[in-house]
Amino acid sequence: MSVPSATIRPATRLYVEDGLAEGRTLGLARDQAHFLRSVLRLGPGAKLAVFNARDGEWLAEIEGLGKGWCSLAVGAQVRRPGPEPDLWLVFAPIKRARIDFIAEKATELGCSLLQPVMTRFTAVSRVNEERLAANAREAAEQCERLTIPQVRPTRSLGEVLDDWPAERRLIVCAEWGAARPIAEALQAVRAEDQDEAQKTAGPWAILTGPEGGFAESELDALRKLPFVIPVGLGPRILRADTAALAALACWQAVLGDGAERPPADLAGFPAG
Amino acid sequence: MSVPSATIRPATRLYVEDGLAEGRTLGLARDQAHFLRSVLRLGPGAKLAVFNARDGEWLAEIEGLGKGWCSLAVGAQVRRPGPEPDLWLVFAPIKRARIDFIAEKATELGCSLLQPVMTRFTAVSRVNEERLAANAREAAEQCERLTIPQVRPTRSLGEVLDDWPAERRLIVCAEWGAARPIAEALQAVRAEDQDEAQKTAGPWAILTGPEGGFAESELDALRKLPFVIPVGLGPRILRADTAALAALACWQAVLGDGAERPPADLAGFPAG
Repeated sequence: MSVPSATIRPATRLYVEDGLAEGRTLGLARDQAHFLRSVLRLGPGAKLAVFNARDGEWLAEIEGLGKGWCSLAVGAQVRRPGPEPDLWLVFAPIKRARIDFIAEKATELGCSLLQPVMTRFTAVSRVNEERLAANAREAAEQCERLTIPQVRPTRSLGEVLDDWPAERRLIVCAEWGAARPIAEALQAVRAEDQDEAQKTAGPWAILTGPEGGFAESELDALRKLPFVIPVGLGPRILRADTAALAALACWQAVLGDGAERPPADLAGFPAG
Repeated sequence: MSVPSATIRPATRLYVEDGLAEGRTLGLARDQAHFLRSVLRLGPGAKLAVFNARDGEWLAEIEGLGKGWCSLAVGAQVRRPGPEPDLWLVFAPIKRARIDFIAEKATELGCSLLQPVMTRFTAVSRVNEERLAANAREAAEQCERLTIPQVRPTRSLGEVLDDWPAERRLIVCAEWGAARPIAEALQAVRAEDQDEAQKTAGPWAILTGPEGGFAESELDALRKLPFVIPVGLGPRILRADTAALAALACWQAVLGDGAERPPADLAGFPAG
């Protein structure tokens, strides 16, 4: 076992929407240019990595930068794009620091889409989806993902369920009433899917309520839906953010990509 | 299924060290008296609950309160003490908001002891153990635990390992090198323990590194210890706080009390 050489890949990773290919020149967005110049204090010649879901991850070098602009020369590809788990997080918004936290942690835990939903006891009246998306992008840059979770506009729980795609199974974190322990529920699905010789876990979602929990009528309605699996997360009453995170972590461990390892040449790098 | 009545138990829960028994009068600590009077604005006659690990949880009523003092009359017992998982979190300290977060989430996830350890790449030089303990107590009050995690003084990783109790298994979150996926590792232990007809999961601990990860020499030394199980948490590089939380959540789901439900008369109560 040897520690990978620190020269293999730069620690700074930026998500870019432009197509990536060796020899291309990229112009960065204003906030990214500012970050490189004024926060990291990088100059021409500095090495970084750029990535997106379509093209994977590539080395890049700063060609020039100034106030609000930066141009990069794209070098060699270091990672190819690959399949990722299809796991949505549908969550009742909570107050600011904790919603930031949900966006960050859900991204690290490999969530593919964030859908804020208004429920009966949701106390927050407005969601800043742009801020959620910015937190998600930053977390993706830090955690070596190639994708960033999509952030959907906030809707009511009823609307989201009315439009629900039937094949997407929905784990509902239910703090009271009938529910299977999460590990048992996930392992049962895993055993079933293996019997059916399915290779992937298929499309999934996790739903968590607000700090005040779900209303009885909401949980009753959820339990009647054919795609819903109500699960329990143990005897303690978890905060909304903790519940989301615990469910995501268990899902990835049992049905997701928990058996994969970080890319070998990345290991040992401090993030950012 | 019916929603439990909101009259069964008050939403405010306080941890107290004094012995609890019906008819006793308790004097609260200064910070708790301040919290009831100035934050919650409660007065004489207000109902709350008090708890500790030894005596369980009891109803109580404010008899009198003033600046920095409060006396309570203890009423009926509402929960008996019971066994809880014996799961330590041994973690390299990280910067302030994130260490607060670790104390809160580890408490919600049923951790029994918090042991900060200095590792080679730990960037934080001083740990405020009192602050950790205060965060843990507050989280225990919110999440309906009867116990609060013990907070141990910070030590070096080497010292902690030198004194390690041999029967306590240690899950090491290893972002590189040989490691078993966490779900597989935990399920293997579960299957083994069931074969041996053991009733409990026994004493366990989880170890997470600092933001910069473990040094090669640290991971090498850890892997040689007979009680260590190195585990992987998937392909993304998780932040230190996320890794701690994900490992705790998976452990509780597979080996801990994940199959238990919140006390029936509590369900549906917003915390705090």
